[in-house]
Amino acid sequence: MEINIGNIMNSTLLKTKMNDFQDLDHIDGLSISTISANLYGKARDDLVMFYFRDGANYASVYTKSKIISENIKWNLNSKSKKIKSLIVNTRNANAFTGPKGYQGLKEIAEELSIQLSKKQKEDEDHPNKVLPSEIIFGCTGTIGEKYPTEKIKKNIPELISKIRYTQNKLIWIKAALGIMTTDTRPKLAMEECKIGNVKIKIYGVAKGSGMIYPNMGTTLGYIFTDAKLSNDILKKLLKKNIETTFNAISCDGDTSTNDMVSIISTAKKNNPIIKNINDKKIKSFDIALNSVLLNLAKRVVADGEGATKFITVNVRKAKSEEEAKKICFSIANSSLVKTAIAGEDPNWGRVIMAVGKTGIDINLKKLSIKFGDFKVIEKGQLIESYRESDVANYLKNEKIDLSISLETGSKNFTVYTMDLTRKYIEINSDYRS
Amino acid sequence: MEINIGNIMNSTLLKTKMNDFQDLDHIDGLSISTISANLYGKARDDLVMFYFRDGANYASVYTKSKIISENIKWNLNSKSKKIKSLIVNTRNANAFTGPKGYQGLKEIAEELSIQLSKKQKEDEDHPNKVLPSEIIFGCTGTIGEKYPTEKIKKNIPELISKIRYTQNKLIWIKAALGIMTTDTRPKLAMEECKIGNVKIKIYGVAKGSGMIYPNMGTTLGYIFTDAKLSNDILKKLLKKNIETTFNAISCDGDTSTNDMVSIISTAKKNNPIIKNINDKKIKSFDIALNSVLLNLAKRVVADGEGATKFITVNVRKAKSEEEAKKICFSIANSSLVKTAIAGEDPNWGRVIMAVGKTGIDINLKKLSIKFGDFKVIEKGQLIESYRESDVANYLKNEKIDLSISLETGSKNFTVYTMDLTRKYIEINSDYRS
Repeated sequence: MEINIGNIMNSTLLKTKMNDFQDLDHIDGLSISTISANLYGKARDDLVMFYFRDGANYASVYTKSKIISENIKWNLNSKSKKIKSLIVNTRNANAFTGPKGYQGLKEIAEELSIQLSKKQKEDEDHPNKVLPSEIIFGCTGTIGEKYPTEKIKKNIPELISKIRYTQNKLIWIKAALGIMTTDTRPKLAMEECKIGNVKIKIYGVAKGSGMIYPNMGTTLGYIFTDAKLSNDILKKLLKKNIETTFNAISCDGDTSTNDMVSIISTAKKNNPIIKNINDKKIKSFDIALNSVLLNLAKRVVADGEGATKFITVNVRKAKSEEEAKKICFSIANSSLVKTAIAGEDPNWGRVIMAVGKTGIDINLKKLSIKFGDFKVIEKGQLIESYRESDVANYLKNEKIDLSISLETGSKNFTVYTMDLTRKYIEINSDYRS
Repeated sequence: MEINIGNIMNSTLLKTKMNDFQDLDHIDGLSISTISANLYGKARDDLVMFYFRDGANYASVYTKSKIISENIKWNLNSKSKKIKSLIVNTRNANAFTGPKGYQGLKEIAEELSIQLSKKQKEDEDHPNKVLPSEIIFGCTGTIGEKYPTEKIKKNIPELISKIRYTQNKLIWIKAALGIMTTDTRPKLAMEECKIGNVKIKIYGVAKGSGMIYPNMGTTLGYIFTDAKLSNDILKKLLKKNIETTFNAISCDGDTSTNDMVSIISTAKKNNPIIKNINDKKIKSFDIALNSVLLNLAKRVVADGEGATKFITVNVRKAKSEEEAKKICFSIANSSLVKTAIAGEDPNWGRVIMAVGKTGIDINLKKLSIKFGDFKVIEKGQLIESYRESDVANYLKNEKIDLSISLETGSKNFTVYTMDLTRKYIEINSDYRS
């Protein structure tokens, strides 16, 4: 069920939907442009530029796959300390496209460098030059198809002409729509916090888990802030917070060649300098960043292919966080658990199976399992008062909480996933063309 | 699509289907009895006894899950060098049933011991006593439900009265039907070989991958031979051959609490004594055993829930067998690969994804991928002559071969799986009752 983004943008639907999103407005130092480069062959935006006239600090985390897309190679090769632009295209992952795919990015970066530098020269208050190495890329779409270098290059003038130097909520929604593949909903989140006494904004957009031109549930997440933070601090904060947010979600256990989450700071605020992420002054930012990342990550899962239910898997009192996480993902990636929940069947035996298959030593006599507030297993025993109908009833909800307590230690982990439905199979087995 | 086994057994359908199976006949030293203990509440056999009046050597491999069923605990506790009986019930996995589940098996074993000993006494040529510890159990069905101890105990007299001292093809089919849960087809296989100059039979039955009362795709496999082989040799041969057969299949990546494959030898043949599995005289048996195990394992996959296609994943020229296996299973367990094949979509990008996500270092410039005989990727490049329609056409077949060559070493591995269809979701998300 694909959204016709062209229609949406012009329809009253969007106006009524606007209330679904937080009130993102302007981030000083950021400009956005969204256009259609006709990559989909239909009326929808598919090319988005985030532009930082004065440069921005940044940090990224990428897919752990051993096969990475050409744009991720490009980004990893970029040694620039600041970036001037992040370009995101959909429809084509630029993965397994070989040297030609990489060359395409180089040509686009060079052309953008020329045209953006020209524009900067025209803007008398911003006469900086934009270097190709100051441009990074996000790509998502089909793997292995020829990268549409020419189409993108041809549309650079339009991309530049559409630059908006200030943002409002509608522009953020357009940006989030423009990076979607078969996502059914744009994904935005925001938080405000303080560093010292200085008010700071943290805004984010993400995409993930729907696909049209098949293929990977690539996750892209881009966080923007006006805080003055170094690349090093950004990197540490991102790495720390990604573990419990984007790295704690699973739709189908598959890992894209293109996953990318970046945090970009325009450094427009005069907040106190932060040299260490344990500095108390960064605490509020740290919490707010986690909140934005988690909010976006949850939206990716909630929009997971064919999802009808949002599932939170909580493993508590494990020996280590690693063990808790392993059990969480064993449950969250189990087709049998996910189909049972889709069928609203309190089939707790499948949860037991998923715990057991991890190979982690557990003490069965201490194991407890809850569906929402309904205890099912306590100290390894089916509880006396267990009524299957209660849990079956609970499973009619759209949000399902599954808690497993091991009582072998003190470490917890939480993972977010969705149910596995016929619709997932339809989306992924229907032929592309 | 569940078979009504009661009907089948009485119908002409079975007669016409008889030709689908090999001609298993009698194994000296083995008796079989199959009855309905009314575990399903409908007319079908659900309790099967394999009985060895003179005792039999045996070896088993069990699930690697850390949560194991009570019958597997029972079997592991059994210190008897020979077994007299293997009892298999369906409908109830006797997993997570606690001490009561274990106690149930003990009561059944004790009652069987008394009644079988009595029968042995009546058979003047076989006056042996049957000890409870000489009985092992296979259980499959729902996890966590109370084990039907009384129902089974009550039916022991009938189980004993139905013992048939010789087998024919129909009895083997009945035994294979009697251990099914929602399998849609019984699974039998046989090979004949020689140890020294002595002709040896290897017969096997298995179940797996279909479920009614939802739950686990428990795999059970039982191999019977008349060869004279020690427990030690049986164990070594089973362990060696299980790796490339039952441990090389995957339906949905989930692991049961009840998986069990046993080899049981009645030792009725006077073959040369084998003391070492490298003895050349055991070579032919070794090959034949592998063939029976592989035949059964493939039948389990072919009957995988909702399967419309049988997929063979071949990873060649890897650095180690372990790496080859890891890549095989990453592909075989990928929902995205399996839905693409269900949709007959030559979406090779998903294969690339599944290779990449293993985290194994590969040399992209050497990677080759074939669908059947159709080369898609060669030396890391989409081949010039690639025509998607050729591969789409190939994917219309029921048997799909996927070959990945890494060219980083000399080790190969093969894994068998099936496609992921809407039907899988239906089977597993439809409520049990």
